[in-house]
Order: sequence, then structure tokens, then C-alpha cells
Amino acid sequence: MARTIQSLERAAAVLRLLAGGERRLGLSDISSAIGLAKGTTHGILRTLQQEGFVEQEPASGRYQLGAELLRLGNSYLDVHELRARALVWTDDLARSSGESVYLGVLHQQGVLIVHHVFRPDDSRQVLEVGAMHPLYSTALGKVLCAYDPVAHSEVAEVVREPLTPHTVTGADAFEAALELTRARGWAADVEETWEGVASVAAPVHDRRRMPVGAVGITGAVERVCQEGVVRPEIVAAVRDCVRAVSRDLGAGRF
Amino acid sequence: MARTIQSLERAAAVLRLLAGGERRLGLSDISSAIGLAKGTTHGILRTLQQEGFVEQEPASGRYQLGAELLRLGNSYLDVHELRARALVWTDDLARSSGESVYLGVLHQQGVLIVHHVFRPDDSRQVLEVGAMHPLYSTALGKVLCAYDPVAHSEVAEVVREPLTPHTVTGADAFEAALELTRARGWAADVEETWEGVASVAAPVHDRRRMPVGAVGITGAVERVCQEGVVRPEIVAAVRDCVRAVSRDLGAGRF
Repeated sequence: MARTIQSLERAAAVLRLLAGGERRLGLSDISSAIGLAKGTTHGILRTLQQEGFVEQEPASGRYQLGAELLRLGNSYLDVHELRARALVWTDDLARSSGESVYLGVLHQQGVLIVHHVFRPDDSRQVLEVGAMHPLYSTALGKVLCAYDPVAHSEVAEVVREPLTPHTVTGADAFEAALELTRARGWAADVEETWEGVASVAAPVHDRRRMPVGAVGITGAVERVCQEGVVRPEIVAAVRDCVRAVSRDLGAGRF
Repeated sequence: MARTIQSLERAAAVLRLLAGGERRLGLSDISSAIGLAKGTTHGILRTLQQEGFVEQEPASGRYQLGAELLRLGNSYLDVHELRARALVWTDDLARSSGESVYLGVLHQQGVLIVHHVFRPDDSRQVLEVGAMHPLYSTALGKVLCAYDPVAHSEVAEVVREPLTPHTVTGADAFEAALELTRARGWAADVEETWEGVASVAAPVHDRRRMPVGAVGITGAVERVCQEGVVRPEIVAAVRDCVRAVSRDLGAGRF
């Protein structure tokens, strides 16, 4: 049984540190944050820099994440079968609904966006591929928690902070929402994550019938909902999309 | 003087291996490719897997890149000052020119695309953020080689394979192209990388007047060129854009 390698774990901790919060840190900040001697930390940073995972700002000498991570992250997307299968269907969903479409998978204690189709209009939009969305408040996250036992156990460890006045923070109410999601096959988020924004999502299954991700539509609550309820044609469009993607993944008809 | 850490270098080699070529590899393939014993390789893979950098396909047991790389790559984009400054200007350039716009930086022996604005029409386009373009044949690459001494020394080690019948492969002809680029302040690629595709690029400078990246327009040769020559209004639009981005980076007027 192979053991894990300490220097690799430490290097991963350095990268996670640089990915959150300040993002440009000096050697002292990094060594004190991860609790290692400066010499040890410098050896890690030097190697990460040599491999392109970390860059050093010439003027200040501070460290930040490096370009090699972007290149490798892009390669991850290329190898992602779910994403490859979903490209065409999510594109069609954005066109037919006129809203932006997201494909998310469970990663750590959140939803990692692996594909994002812009709302098909001329507005300025920011690509969110690689971004993390909350597991407990978004439609994508609720779908993953409802269908994937791993996601369900991850979300149990998350503190459900209220993001808006509508966020469901109680454990019982959250479990009831997951129950409802399983009963009807889709989840909604009506201003529970972002004020004025609603989303609808449904699960994608693979050939072993395992939940491997979720597809969702996100848009202005005025367009996605009617009298406080998600418009049924949007629910139908999202569910058509996940059926198509699941079929392409070999899940068979259901 | 801190030394580099061997296990980190080996882990980086595993990730690079999984990012190229086959992309899903078994333990034996990986250990033989990087020339390490299976036990050592397994320890590296196990740690990389625990940290989310590598995932194991349940059915085949083969390894592939993991989701954490996508999350970290996205954080790299967030911290990238050049990209942040260029967002609005490249958006405007795509709108005014009607063509797709790329922002590239030197990475290893290629151009890493850190921002890509789609051509503003309804066509299906694939996002190329994180992709690598050739340094020796694209307009972006020629600009980097002409202005950045590091890029120039990197490209000297690249074998200039002909990608189309128009690719410049000779050393003297390539140096002449760089000379021309410096003389007029922009570079062109007329079907030297992709058949039927032409591009125009110009350099972005920072407050220390250092070349930090390049912005380029890419489109069908029929639209970008007229009678075999790049249309002057496209050159002017690209150069206006890099001046604006450079000014935002503090380069001063020039």
C-alpha cells in the first residue's frame, strides 16, 4: 500500500493558499500560513516556480499562481467525457431558452462549473468555467446533493450561511428540498443564492445510472419564474437536455 | 539556497504526461513513461488523487487529470492583471471588428491563450482559454518573439514544422519577419498556421515598458485580408486596442 507523499501535500496546500484570499503572497506569509520553516517553504516554492505552477512578481518578489495550471486545467476539460457529450445539447438549451446554461460537477464541498453557455444576446457576460458555486443553495448543487450520496455527505459538513433572505439554512428544510428534488426530478433556486436570480437544474446519469453532474438554466427571476413559480416550459427544456446528455453517455431511456 | 524537491518534479511530470497524448493512463504506462518504479509512481498518483489533481476512472482503474486543476487554473485567470485590464478593450475590439479576439502570453515554448472573445455572431465557437498556439507561426507568437527576448530564445529551440504550405520554416526568413514586426509594430499570419485563417497581433507593454503579452484578431482570410494583404483598418483596430490596454497597465502614452 503506497503512502502519500508529504512534500506533495504541502505543495498542494501552497497552491490552495494562493488560489484563495490574497492571491499574491510573500515567502513569510506563506510559510506562516502553512506552518512550515521558511527554508522548507522556499524549496517548495522554488520547485513549483520551476514547473510553472507558481510565478514570482519581479517587483515585489511575491508569489502567485502560474500559467501551467491554466494549461493543465484546459487539458482536464478536454478529457472530460460528460462535458464533451453535453456541449451540443447545452448549446441548444441556451438557444431555445434564451438563458445561460451551466454544467456542474461535485468538487470538494461545492459545484465546479465545467461548462457555461452564455445567454444568447449581446450583453457582456463573464465566463464561469472553473468557478465554484455553493452546493446548498443553487439548483445545480441541490440536484447533486439529492442524487449523489457523496455530495450529500459533503454538504452535511458545510455551514449553510444565508446568502439572501431566501436561502434555506435549516437542516430539516434542506432535506425536505432534496426529497422534493428526487420526487419531481429537478431542483429550483429562486433567489436563494443571488438576489434577482433564479435557476432550474436536473441530473445527468451515466451508463451505470450514476449521477455524474447537473445541467441548469440561470436567469433573471422575472424571466425564469411566473408568479413566484418556475415556468414549466423551462423545467421541461432542462429535463429534455439532461435526458439527451444521459442518453449520449449510455444511460438508456428513462 | 533552497534546492528543488524531487518528488514535486516527478509529480509535475506525471501531470504533464496526463495532459498530453493519451490522457487516460494505467499505472504501468505512467511508471514506464516517467521511468520510475511502480511503487514510487503509485505513491505519487495516490497523493495527487487525494489532492484532486488526478482522478481514477472507476471501471478501468486508469488515471486522468482532476478537477482541482480546473479550479486552480480559474484562480490563475482571476489574479492575472493583464487579463483583467484587457477584458473591456478586447470585448470592444471583437464588437468593432466583428472577428474573434485573443489575448496571449508566453508560456513554455508556445502562446498560452488567457482570454478569448468570441466573434460576435451566432456561430458555434469553441472557447480556447488555456489552449497553446504555436510561437513561430501565429501573429501572437511572432509579436512575443519580436519583443520579448525570453520568447525569442524559446522559439530558437522549437522545430518550425510546416503547418500549411505558407508556414515560414527557415531561420533567416523567420528573423526577417520579426524584424518587420518590430519595424511596423504588429505581426500578421496569413494562412501560416491554419488554412483559410489569417490573424493580426500587436504587443501589450506594462509600466516598465516590458512586453507582457499580445492581442490579436483571428478570422477568415477573405475577411481579414484584401488582395492577399491584411486590411489596414484591422491593423489600426488591433493597435488601438493594445495601446489602450498598455495605458491601463501604466505604460504611458507612446
